[in-house]
Amino acid sequence: MLQRLMIRFNNDYNKGACPEILDAFSRTNTENYGGYGLDEWCEKGCQEIKKYLGGIDSDIHFLTGGTQTNYTLIAAALRPFQSVISADCAHIHGHETGAVENTGHKILIQKSTSGKLSASSVAKEAQTYKLSGIKEHITQPKLVFISFPSELGTVYSKSELEDLRRVCDEYGLYLYIDGARLGYGLGAEGGNVTMEDIARYADAFYIGGTKCGAFFGEALVLKNPELKMNFRSYMKQNGAMLAKGWLLGLQFYTLFKDGLYFSITRNAVIQAMKIKEAFKARGITLYAESPTNQQFAVLTKSRMDKLSEKYIFEYESDLGEGLHCVRFCTSWSTDAGDVDSLVKDISTL
Amino acid sequence: MLQRLMIRFNNDYNKGACPEILDAFSRTNTENYGGYGLDEWCEKGCQEIKKYLGGIDSDIHFLTGGTQTNYTLIAAALRPFQSVISADCAHIHGHETGAVENTGHKILIQKSTSGKLSASSVAKEAQTYKLSGIKEHITQPKLVFISFPSELGTVYSKSELEDLRRVCDEYGLYLYIDGARLGYGLGAEGGNVTMEDIARYADAFYIGGTKCGAFFGEALVLKNPELKMNFRSYMKQNGAMLAKGWLLGLQFYTLFKDGLYFSITRNAVIQAMKIKEAFKARGITLYAESPTNQQFAVLTKSRMDKLSEKYIFEYESDLGEGLHCVRFCTSWSTDAGDVDSLVKDISTL
Amino acid sequence: MLQRLMIRFNNDYNKGACPEILDAFSRTNTENYGGYGLDEWCEKGCQEIKKYLGGIDSDIHFLTGGTQTNYTLIAAALRPFQSVISADCAHIHGHETGAVENTGHKILIQKSTSGKLSASSVAKEAQTYKLSGIKEHITQPKLVFISFPSELGTVYSKSELEDLRRVCDEYGLYLYIDGARLGYGLGAEGGNVTMEDIARYADAFYIGGTKCGAFFGEALVLKNPELKMNFRSYMKQNGAMLAKGWLLGLQFYTLFKDGLYFSITRNAVIQAMKIKEAFKARGITLYAESPTNQQFAVLTKSRMDKLSEKYIFEYESDLGEGLHCVRFCTSWSTDAGDVDSLVKDISTL
Amino acid sequence: MLQRLMIRFNNDYNKGACPEILDAFSRTNTENYGGYGLDEWCEKGCQEIKKYLGGIDSDIHFLTGGTQTNYTLIAAALRPFQSVISADCAHIHGHETGAVENTGHKILIQKSTSGKLSASSVAKEAQTYKLSGIKEHITQPKLVFISFPSELGTVYSKSELEDLRRVCDEYGLYLYIDGARLGYGLGAEGGNVTMEDIARYADAFYIGGTKCGAFFGEALVLKNPELKMNFRSYMKQNGAMLAKGWLLGLQFYTLFKDGLYFSITRNAVIQAMKIKEAFKARGITLYAESPTNQQFAVLTKSRMDKLSEKYIFEYESDLGEGLHCVRFCTSWSTDAGDVDSLVKDISTL
Repeated sequence: MLQRLMIRFNNDYNKGACPEILDAFSRTNTENYGGYGLDEWCEKGCQEIKKYLGGIDSDIHFLTGGTQTNYTLIAAALRPFQSVISADCAHIHGHETGAVENTGHKILIQKSTSGKLSASSVAKEAQTYKLSGIKEHITQPKLVFISFPSELGTVYSKSELEDLRRVCDEYGLYLYIDGARLGYGLGAEGGNVTMEDIARYADAFYIGGTKCGAFFGEALVLKNPELKMNFRSYMKQNGAMLAKGWLLGLQFYTLFKDGLYFSITRNAVIQAMKIKEAFKARGITLYAESPTNQQFAVLTKSRMDKLSEKYIFEYESDLGEGLHCVRFCTSWSTDAGDVDSLVKDISTL
Repeated sequence: MLQRLMIRFNNDYNKGACPEILDAFSRTNTENYGGYGLDEWCEKGCQEIKKYLGGIDSDIHFLTGGTQTNYTLIAAALRPFQSVISADCAHIHGHETGAVENTGHKILIQKSTSGKLSASSVAKEAQTYKLSGIKEHITQPKLVFISFPSELGTVYSKSELEDLRRVCDEYGLYLYIDGARLGYGLGAEGGNVTMEDIARYADAFYIGGTKCGAFFGEALVLKNPELKMNFRSYMKQNGAMLAKGWLLGLQFYTLFKDGLYFSITRNAVIQAMKIKEAFKARGITLYAESPTNQQFAVLTKSRMDKLSEKYIFEYESDLGEGLHCVRFCTSWSTDAGDVDSLVKDISTL
Repeated sequence: MLQRLMIRFNNDYNKGACPEILDAFSRTNTENYGGYGLDEWCEKGCQEIKKYLGGIDSDIHFLTGGTQTNYTLIAAALRPFQSVISADCAHIHGHETGAVENTGHKILIQKSTSGKLSASSVAKEAQTYKLSGIKEHITQPKLVFISFPSELGTVYSKSELEDLRRVCDEYGLYLYIDGARLGYGLGAEGGNVTMEDIARYADAFYIGGTKCGAFFGEALVLKNPELKMNFRSYMKQNGAMLAKGWLLGLQFYTLFKDGLYFSITRNAVIQAMKIKEAFKARGITLYAESPTNQQFAVLTKSRMDKLSEKYIFEYESDLGEGLHCVRFCTSWSTDAGDVDSLVKDISTL
Repeated sequence: MLQRLMIRFNNDYNKGACPEILDAFSRTNTENYGGYGLDEWCEKGCQEIKKYLGGIDSDIHFLTGGTQTNYTLIAAALRPFQSVISADCAHIHGHETGAVENTGHKILIQKSTSGKLSASSVAKEAQTYKLSGIKEHITQPKLVFISFPSELGTVYSKSELEDLRRVCDEYGLYLYIDGARLGYGLGAEGGNVTMEDIARYADAFYIGGTKCGAFFGEALVLKNPELKMNFRSYMKQNGAMLAKGWLLGLQFYTLFKDGLYFSITRNAVIQAMKIKEAFKARGITLYAESPTNQQFAVLTKSRMDKLSEKYIFEYESDLGEGLHCVRFCTSWSTDAGDVDSLVKDISTL
């Protein structure tokens, strides 16, 4: 019971959904709909999203979670001898129980910088394959996986995305963007990447709902025609086709109809910036220079303990020499008052 | 827009959730919870369900859909050379896009009778393996899959379940029961199988939520200790671990706390019986003698067309000679007035 | 030791290789060659085989065994949601430990007639998919698997092959022919199908070496360009690329250079016909009307026991009413004297 | 044709088999044997190998190649959520086309030292899992893969093997040793590890035949009872059960009956030492300090070109600054005169 009184900054999926979505569930609860995503709300949800995609020709599908979306897309995209290129901190590498390998595909891990995968490391890996005299003894890199924002909350600049796109084009690679926190990335402090940019650079990407205001659900946008083919078959085969699919379409319709998705995530970033500034003001090192809703601070044990009395946050790693990396995460549901309280407490650490 | 005015008997997943669940979503929407099913509602949901399991020692996990639950359980249960025994009409065989085979396992198909798998056909298949002189050239049957109720709405009697259990024990097979419509099966007209019986006979089974009053979700009950090990790892690997897991626990808590699950599904069966009797009274053959919420009628084209003017129902198959099999399905959300209307229209066919 | 004195008609892989191949091994044993099938003998072996293919544009790869060849080809040919159509008696269904399912693909089983798959059953299955309103809930049939000769030793006529080809073209299916015993099939008594025909009808097929005079090895012929792509990668990934690949190329070169493959298998059929006639003359029913090297006879227990004193043959199944199906198999290594002995013993059963 | 006159030091699988094996093929070629490894030569081959295993209780199976053996063992050993720990230079990681991942399992890559995996890195990885609070989000390391000798020709000392064994015992990991070149490792210059040691430390290992005097084939020794169960089913399912299995048993019988395996590989090491000394004498750096049949030299382009006029060797990598790493490999078939010639040519580089 005590925990209820604690203030949660542990993650961005600790509350239900924004009120507009709850309201939409209420209003539609006695209506009948067709099953498996073949309904009017899915149709409307797609239409609203497409307004932000710059006119690309895309298929949009609604799935229930991020791991599911990642491995289903990858399973659909690759032939058995093909592999994925990702950063060492990629969610598919370290947080999804080997789901990608479980579908039969190798991940070629690259060293990341500030949580990001560089175009040059992708090019090097692709070039290694291209020049290899024993191609049949190694896997063919075919899909580049990045997250926007990254696992450290950092974001790729337009020019970094352009570089990745160029390398992908040069080597015939798919660029797939995991947007579990896409809203926070697009609302990054000082950022200038738009959803239209994401749509232009990626072959496929998903717009995270679970962490950005929905009860659950991710909207997968498929642009490359090769990736569109039979995708609903892959969804069903991988348990990713919700019987009451309209619940997903309805949520994304609600989030995108009036730009709610962007305002609630931008607000979370604004709150996160206050926390970031508080750490900086107190002379506390930030593990990464994140302009988004996740802030990674380097704390001593005693400071960590002090904050733990009132706040729930995520322990990341022991950095040695008495220092620890922890994550404070704001979200669409973060209360400004809670942030003010945290900021104050940081200032007196 | 016209379709909105039509009355849907096409399936049991065409409406949101029972009001009690919507209300629970509303009441908890501003609360914070731990992620991935490690929260108080999942704990409470399990406790409520366990009251109906006759004291067996079980692990209960909440997943988002039936296909996902089936293949995740099977992937966890079997080694690569082991296979599943199921009826020819089994959902995993004909409606899940080869999800089981996609995890690497063969399904050994048996001819069904009234939608059911007989203990004798299981025994014969198991015995064939046991006596085989070339065991390493064939798969080892290891898991028996049945649905309760079956795809034709029929239910296994206690003695049929006992027979299956005995054969499974004799040959070292797991008995797994797909309970997508478990509520309707337990509420079968004239039936006497209880959830306690299901728990006693099965090594694992799932309690369907999606088709029985929830927005979405299935509760998988694992009894056999071999099946319990590391199951959460399999869930995560297969995209079956919802980030906001409490939404599932909360729904099952609501359904089981006061027996709501049983009353709403029993009511659907009562409505279905009215439809069944109406067909019989009109001299219309029923494709199967179903005591549950699905009724399969044999109609001429003209009768089918007539009913199609007002009702949405599912076309099943062309039986030849001008006859067609169609399904009328009631559910937890079926309106008694709609049933009365249908009954009346059937009487004048 | 006793078994050594017994005469083996149990299968067609119970002896090493024809003397010409042993000799080729001896002559080349001190030579150096490139690895993994990139050597002069593989090149020459391909050239010799191509002389019999009617000028089609093909890639030929050498693998070590039939199960391996079947599942590697299927894994390379299909996307995860696609499936195989085969007869109920197909080797991939009942004798390869679920290898095809282990690669993730469902087999859609069809009732066979005389061991053969009919074009009409293929068409029906393909048409079911085509007309299905729920395509994403079922697998897409994409590859038709047949054996030539079949598991019962029967062969498809040219017109049956043409029918299969036409249906495959109509529905966009691959036709793949398992030719583990291709030599015996092409040498069928009264048959008129040539290897050129096989090459014309199939998208891919393999020429069995293991059962047709080689120590081991199968030559997989890929005609359809879609199946050729990156096939060596699939081979390596599936452990199907022999380090000393020239040993395979050399064997096929030896078998095809002067038509040895055809003469030794034709001779086996001639021997089998003597056995067939002997059974017929004695009034013993043949389980299938096989014009190839496998003869399936229906014997009483006492006759079976009598022949077991001197011969090793394969027990197939209990037919009930005191009758049993057994297989007598000749091969490239069958001794005419042994056949004469068997024929005589059959005549006095 | 020119290449025939070149002297091959490119690898250890460029010639057929040692004369004793060719002779054994000749002597047995007219005999009949049971199929699929159920024959007297497989039995005898096992018996001869077991004489070197120190009395451990083991099952021995004969497979056709290294990649096949590795992935079949791993597929049999692991459950879907379990992973492999290996060095970054491991054959399964960089030379087998993702075969392990193709069976669904992740490889957790560790930085190697001199081609070897350290017990401490294994312990660290296993400890990370053990301490993890999110076990279900990551794979469980379960099998440690090492090669003996390593890809750089180096060998683990007894104490290194003991350390690995101890860590495996502590964390419940399988230790699996890829012995593609086991003979050369056991015959390492200055080495003291015996096959008995390998059998004592490993849960499973394979004795390479392909690179150590056989035409083809590897003998997989299974010690841990968990790994023995149903292994023949895994072999068949993975195309790893040769129809004429006696060809494999016969080769291993021939290699182990009088210790031929050890003498021919030891001789190859003696030849390799001459080459190693020649490089050292000429002041040429060796990329690794290998006491076995593979020698990795660091050459300038001009020296590489000079040696290329007469010898075939394997190019490994561009080391930058005008230097290149190349491999000279001796084998059971290496001619002492060829080595003398190479030694002389190195001395005048």
